[in-house]
Amino acid sequence: MHRSHRCGELRISHVNEMVTLSGWVQKSRNLGGMTFVDLRDRYGITQLTFNMDTHAALCDSARKLGREFVIKVTGKVIERSSKNGQMATGDIEIEVTELELLNASKTPPFTIEDDTDGGEDLRMKYRYLDLRRNPVMKNLALRNRLSIETRKYLDSIEFFEIETPYLIKSTPEGARDFVVPSRMNPGQFYALPQSPQTFKQLLMVSGYDRYYQIVKCFRDEDLRADRQPEFTQIDCEMAFVEQEDVLNTFEGMVRHLFREVKELDPGEFPRMYYDDAMRMYGSDKPDIRFEMEFVDMSPVAKNKGFQVFDSQEAIIGIRVDDAGIYTRKQLDALTDFVKRPQIGAKGLVYCKCNEDGTFKSSVDKFFDQEALAAWASHCNAKPGDLILLLSGDLNNTRKQMNELRLKMGSDLGLRDPNNFKPLWVLDFPLLEWDEDSKRYHAMHHPFTSPKPEHMDILETKPGEVKANAYDMVINGVEIGGGSIRIHNRDIQSRMFDLLGFTKEEAQAQFGFLLNAFEYGAPPHGGLALGFDRLCSLFGGSDSIRDFIAFPKNNSGRDVMIDSPSPLDRSQLAELHLDTQDPEDKTK
Amino acid sequence: MHRSHRCGELRISHVNEMVTLSGWVQKSRNLGGMTFVDLRDRYGITQLTFNMDTHAALCDSARKLGREFVIKVTGKVIERSSKNGQMATGDIEIEVTELELLNASKTPPFTIEDDTDGGEDLRMKYRYLDLRRNPVMKNLALRNRLSIETRKYLDSIEFFEIETPYLIKSTPEGARDFVVPSRMNPGQFYALPQSPQTFKQLLMVSGYDRYYQIVKCFRDEDLRADRQPEFTQIDCEMAFVEQEDVLNTFEGMVRHLFREVKELDPGEFPRMYYDDAMRMYGSDKPDIRFEMEFVDMSPVAKNKGFQVFDSQEAIIGIRVDDAGIYTRKQLDALTDFVKRPQIGAKGLVYCKCNEDGTFKSSVDKFFDQEALAAWASHCNAKPGDLILLLSGDLNNTRKQMNELRLKMGSDLGLRDPNNFKPLWVLDFPLLEWDEDSKRYHAMHHPFTSPKPEHMDILETKPGEVKANAYDMVINGVEIGGGSIRIHNRDIQSRMFDLLGFTKEEAQAQFGFLLNAFEYGAPPHGGLALGFDRLCSLFGGSDSIRDFIAFPKNNSGRDVMIDSPSPLDRSQLAELHLDTQDPEDKTK
Repeated sequence: MHRSHRCGELRISHVNEMVTLSGWVQKSRNLGGMTFVDLRDRYGITQLTFNMDTHAALCDSARKLGREFVIKVTGKVIERSSKNGQMATGDIEIEVTELELLNASKTPPFTIEDDTDGGEDLRMKYRYLDLRRNPVMKNLALRNRLSIETRKYLDSIEFFEIETPYLIKSTPEGARDFVVPSRMNPGQFYALPQSPQTFKQLLMVSGYDRYYQIVKCFRDEDLRADRQPEFTQIDCEMAFVEQEDVLNTFEGMVRHLFREVKELDPGEFPRMYYDDAMRMYGSDKPDIRFEMEFVDMSPVAKNKGFQVFDSQEAIIGIRVDDAGIYTRKQLDALTDFVKRPQIGAKGLVYCKCNEDGTFKSSVDKFFDQEALAAWASHCNAKPGDLILLLSGDLNNTRKQMNELRLKMGSDLGLRDPNNFKPLWVLDFPLLEWDEDSKRYHAMHHPFTSPKPEHMDILETKPGEVKANAYDMVINGVEIGGGSIRIHNRDIQSRMFDLLGFTKEEAQAQFGFLLNAFEYGAPPHGGLALGFDRLCSLFGGSDSIRDFIAFPKNNSGRDVMIDSPSPLDRSQLAELHLDTQDPEDKTK
Repeated sequence: MHRSHRCGELRISHVNEMVTLSGWVQKSRNLGGMTFVDLRDRYGITQLTFNMDTHAALCDSARKLGREFVIKVTGKVIERSSKNGQMATGDIEIEVTELELLNASKTPPFTIEDDTDGGEDLRMKYRYLDLRRNPVMKNLALRNRLSIETRKYLDSIEFFEIETPYLIKSTPEGARDFVVPSRMNPGQFYALPQSPQTFKQLLMVSGYDRYYQIVKCFRDEDLRADRQPEFTQIDCEMAFVEQEDVLNTFEGMVRHLFREVKELDPGEFPRMYYDDAMRMYGSDKPDIRFEMEFVDMSPVAKNKGFQVFDSQEAIIGIRVDDAGIYTRKQLDALTDFVKRPQIGAKGLVYCKCNEDGTFKSSVDKFFDQEALAAWASHCNAKPGDLILLLSGDLNNTRKQMNELRLKMGSDLGLRDPNNFKPLWVLDFPLLEWDEDSKRYHAMHHPFTSPKPEHMDILETKPGEVKANAYDMVINGVEIGGGSIRIHNRDIQSRMFDLLGFTKEEAQAQFGFLLNAFEYGAPPHGGLALGFDRLCSLFGGSDSIRDFIAFPKNNSGRDVMIDSPSPLDRSQLAELHLDTQDPEDKTK
């Protein structure tokens, strides 16, 4: 028996009990006659005492314990003379009478504490030590709780979790697949799923009606910060539903998660059309923890003699409440911010609404006090507010202003990670034009249903077609997205045509789905939520990596196990593979 | 709104309500004035009536509905004049007043009924239709219930589900890996996990203490019947435990599953040592639903003048109760059975214990009535019983007798799939000798701990070392297996030495684990249960394929989606790969 209790468990009521604990040495203090050791396990910390007077040999052994040694102790629970109100077990300590060293430890390369001295690279190499730290444990405990509560909710409304295969078929549509060579089928490959999309649709054709799965998905993309080649999705699909049913079901699920895990209810999720989100926030995932909506400034700023504005498609302003006190230096920093290559604005125009009713603007050579008063009035600005303007072509100006708005929100403390503001964004466009390939791509995926009322302009005005597609956005983060799917073979074929598939390509890649649609496919739709992202949102962090036990770095490497790695030639031969010499481009 | 109720829901208490249902046409009957349609969804079947007199046009439409058409109907619930006690909804029917065709269906290639006319190949190609059949739905519902109850139990005792990575590192030990070429790391590969073994051990080193995961695993093996290249495991690990703790925890879990899902309690699991299982049943996974234990017949059958027996290492008998009535033809069939090449016995000796106290044996030329009476007495056989004997070298004779015993159990109806007899098999050997490679292999895996009392013969008598390893066996099926692990770097190194790893190989492949053991690794152990197999056992089936939504065939192919499949040359180039021409063996 390695323990009778855990290290977070003992209270004043246990005094005089003989107990056995096991765990790691968090720290030890040698005070001459007494040695104190903090013993840690997953559940907490308990103070051990070793008395030189009564147990000299034991105390000697205790003094030799280093950080992270694993020990088992037996002793009596006694009341502390000086209690520690910060610790759950702070009323007691253990007067140790037996000590067993279960395993020694080398000195860890960084401290196992909430604020560690280890850098990212070192912590990832020794991830098994990093995982001992309390903040990381809390993150993984949160992740476990969220998955338990997700399943509890979906099970309660009769969703079935059904496992779909991991060894599937590569399709060139969408992101790049990870592939798996087949030894038994020479020259052929499986692909790892980017999502179980087609399988969950087949399950709807099969009548399963309410499906979900918490499932790993794989995308071989060039990794940006905070993307992982493997990630986890809460994947859901329902049949005999309309968009409203899907929204209500998963709004219910996420509210359940907030109630059970965060003990708060964010209330009913407001809804916003995609077009409005783009107009008011320049983003399809607006952060609505704060207002600062875009104002079209053209009526009061265009054709007033300022040539920079006059030649532009769009002049967009935001009113920043009570930021009229911004200094010249602060405003210059904002200008630098928007001129960074990642944002790419040419410049920033500001107008400070002074407390005395006057205005100070970077363009007051061109706009007199009366003109600036008209700006303020147009923005509903009051004395003390700041107006910021960007101009240019519509799409870029919106993107730039979105970045500036988010920065202002952050700078002014309006983006509290413990304030949760969910939102549905509805009616996404079905297609988006790709300049590189000079063709339309599916904005969501090729299985998304066009709005029925737009079906007759599908071929004639494809860019104007809206889809029954929706995103769940929380605090400016896209947490999930989905759509009502096409369930009719002819419409699915028209969709593949629009996306530039030949009939043969469509049949070769998605023939099984097209065929399935001919055997009584019901109306269906669904949603997938990014589980890693949901965890980091609930945990108040921007980084999904903090919520993944064994993440990969930005080169897709696991530096702890040192993977990927070369294979033996014999293993390659068995798989009917040669690797190209990366230097030899002629092959 | 596609439905107000589901097709399994309406009862006599709903009479006179207007309802809307959606589903599939199971069948329709046109009786002139009335047309009846059975409408099916996941939840049941409801009878629809269309009245030619009152709704002629509607009735006309209903007559055109084919099998598996998807429809939506609105109508009034009425009491049936002739009730059907076999159906949950058999008291009522729907007098339809509105009918909408949601999707037509071609005639399915097989009938969507409990006993279908579709063969295995056809059903797999159209798996989305096969999945509509009630027996398959029940299997997947059972699987969902088992996963929910597994998580409920493990969550209640503070296990964390922690996701481990799918893109890991290839190791030559054990079965063959599926590998994944890395585009970003030319010439390098990930491997898909055969199990999360090393990661769950690292989580123990990290202090997570109670880990589980219901997780896909991958093995690129030549597929025998009922093996899948991807399969699902309930993977568990605990720290600060001894074998007893692990056994109790997972016995508790499986009893919970039996209680919650099958509404029965199989009671405490008996325990048997591996050596005893081999001696008494010739198998490390004995089916203990029936006794028929092996009897060493040498004392009464050897050196009695029958040369066939006299020259053999082992003479093993079983007593088959009340099978003395077996005819010569039946006994010949048993002889044919044991002589099949898969079993490979040279012959079968029987002895019938007649009701009149005499004996009839295939070898009564060599054994007189008195000698046969000694056999019977040695076996505790009573009049009416049958004794069957096999002889040869010990290991093969045990294997052969195991097959014969199982066949006798089946033939005599002693292996009722609804009678569940779990068993722990304990103290497996640590190593097994492999004749081909002339070296020892790990019987479980290289991380299994030798019994502490055998540590000093590890190098001198490796074949005699027993491990802290255990299997959970139910009804003769290995449902799970596990062990107490090595948590000491030196012992792990000795183990790798024994298995023929050089220091460099051990470090290259498992350096991360060896290193982790130097930073305070606690004692730990665990278990993994085969989830597909558990589902089929609970479902009373021998085939795991029936419990997997989208299984692969024996060539590892998914015939529905037609995978694996060739890749474009551009995709191969991006992955820095060439495929060998399978005909060109020189490359």
